[in-house]
Amino acid sequence: MLDLTQDVRDLTAAIVDIESVSGAERALADEVERALSALPHLKVTRSGETVVARTEQGHSERVLIAGHLDTVPTAGNLPSRVEGDLLYGCGTSDMKAGVAVALKLAATVPAPSRDVTYVFYDCEEIEAERNGLTRVARDHAGWLAADFAVLMEPTDGVIEGGCQGTLRAEVTVTGKRAHSARSWFGVNAIHGIEPVLARLNAYEPRRPVVDGLEYHEGLNAVGVQGGVAGNVIPDLCVVTVNYRFAPDLSIEEAEEHVREVFAGFAVSVVDAAPAARPGLTHPVAAAFTAAVGGTPRAKLGWTDVARFSALGVPAVNYGPGDPNLAHQQGEYVSLTKIVESERAMLDWLTI
Amino acid sequence: MLDLTQDVRDLTAAIVDIESVSGAERALADEVERALSALPHLKVTRSGETVVARTEQGHSERVLIAGHLDTVPTAGNLPSRVEGDLLYGCGTSDMKAGVAVALKLAATVPAPSRDVTYVFYDCEEIEAERNGLTRVARDHAGWLAADFAVLMEPTDGVIEGGCQGTLRAEVTVTGKRAHSARSWFGVNAIHGIEPVLARLNAYEPRRPVVDGLEYHEGLNAVGVQGGVAGNVIPDLCVVTVNYRFAPDLSIEEAEEHVREVFAGFAVSVVDAAPAARPGLTHPVAAAFTAAVGGTPRAKLGWTDVARFSALGVPAVNYGPGDPNLAHQQGEYVSLTKIVESERAMLDWLTI
Repeated sequence: MLDLTQDVRDLTAAIVDIESVSGAERALADEVERALSALPHLKVTRSGETVVARTEQGHSERVLIAGHLDTVPTAGNLPSRVEGDLLYGCGTSDMKAGVAVALKLAATVPAPSRDVTYVFYDCEEIEAERNGLTRVARDHAGWLAADFAVLMEPTDGVIEGGCQGTLRAEVTVTGKRAHSARSWFGVNAIHGIEPVLARLNAYEPRRPVVDGLEYHEGLNAVGVQGGVAGNVIPDLCVVTVNYRFAPDLSIEEAEEHVREVFAGFAVSVVDAAPAARPGLTHPVAAAFTAAVGGTPRAKLGWTDVARFSALGVPAVNYGPGDPNLAHQQGEYVSLTKIVESERAMLDWLTI
Repeated sequence: MLDLTQDVRDLTAAIVDIESVSGAERALADEVERALSALPHLKVTRSGETVVARTEQGHSERVLIAGHLDTVPTAGNLPSRVEGDLLYGCGTSDMKAGVAVALKLAATVPAPSRDVTYVFYDCEEIEAERNGLTRVARDHAGWLAADFAVLMEPTDGVIEGGCQGTLRAEVTVTGKRAHSARSWFGVNAIHGIEPVLARLNAYEPRRPVVDGLEYHEGLNAVGVQGGVAGNVIPDLCVVTVNYRFAPDLSIEEAEEHVREVFAGFAVSVVDAAPAARPGLTHPVAAAFTAAVGGTPRAKLGWTDVARFSALGVPAVNYGPGDPNLAHQQGEYVSLTKIVESERAMLDWLTI
């Protein structure tokens, strides 16, 4: 059984060595469930490979600490190994170091200063449909109720607040086919995207401050496709754009903005995911930032904090891993950072 | 056996009714070979499904009259049928009416005023590799020697001189990948094609007069491709352009021009086919235009006349079909135009 009394660094290595590629988390989820169920101060429930453990001390405040159990596919980088201060191996940074910190807190803080819900979930690295949080939010939304959430994704020990939203849309230009030997009988749709690209090149992204954090938007072409045959003037060209928007906009407002930018062109939204406000103005979040220290920064990529935000739970990303190492074959985590992260979280839960 | 003594209109219908989709011309080639071999004034040879018949009167001039035996795939448009002046059916316009005229000439002009080589070839409607003229030019170039050639492709009874060349090139823009949530770390290659499209939109095609005929060039994007994934700033975008150039330029000069237009960008030529000069300044061509009448015009599309041109044989397109009907399900040919075409050609060969 997973020994939660061991040092957080050793616990991280132990968890890393239980392979848990997305879809194959059962062995690790079983270990986590068994270890937490042995602790009398926790109430443990499970859905699929997602394990939820709650303290029920009757506090007026409840915080949620979450980490995903799964990793991207291994790449000859297991078992873990230590070199100096670094622990190498698949999932070390993203995000078993964070999971180990959360498990240590669950085991060693039987009477926290605010009630805590620990969530260890599956299938974060693959399609949203299979994500454990998607399933629990649908089937057991009550399990995720909280005043504030910390998602222990790798942030290099810095609080990253909220996350930017993302919207993809197709900007379509039509023309008229003709033989390219008599091109003047046609209207070239590829030539017709010049003003679309001109607007993208002239675009000045906003850098709004939301709840004290500066975000940085972006509007970019991520795909372009046009052409019928080598001797035909094409009658269709589609530019796919991706708008990354700050959490002061809803999906609807983001869509409206994209339609404004490409006014005069046919715009159709392909998919979108909402942004999440950082929520650092809440008192329990303020206590968290005070305990962790440092200057919180805005999260620019999209993460599962948006799922909590959608449930009305302000959430931040905070974890010991280095986000730049995620999904790399040479992934590692600093052992010192794991210890620092454990200490900061401990301070927060015991003040 | 194909009866070459019947009226050219009936002969056209008879040929149309012998189905000969590209690659399946054998039955028609056999009929043509048998009918021509029965004529004592012709020397007949064959290569695959290409039949060549020559008069050998010892004239100092030799002209070549060519037509392809194959058609595009049928579309429920066989057998042929007559409505008023129109003969409907697959291949009527492109180009069995022209083939019928040539066969009539071969049969009824035993002693032409200049020696004639008749060429009936296969696989014109498909890849150049399989084209009967490609094969004969490679294996029996002597069969195609002549002072002037008439390719009886549909031109609505107007002489269309030479043909424009075609060159395809890829204009490549590179960038630097980045996550689209932090797009400022990347360089967007799709955005980078804006100036390529601006040059295409600003391009003013030449309309040069060559050997008395006005051509009309064109430079167009015929394809564009870029994009890695919906959340990635793309590092590569390729615009495929097609330059249709007048016969006063060689392929090398055409390539140089395209490189000049896109100076500063990586340009790589994908394929090219040479233009053909109209050759109407040659005396035998002048006699031809005098016999046919009308005002010759430039051929803008690429046709097999360029193959003759490459062999040093000036060539024109001239045939009774309407080029706009080629490859259409409702393809037809005017019976009157077939008779007019036969009469004009007869005049030319008997003056």
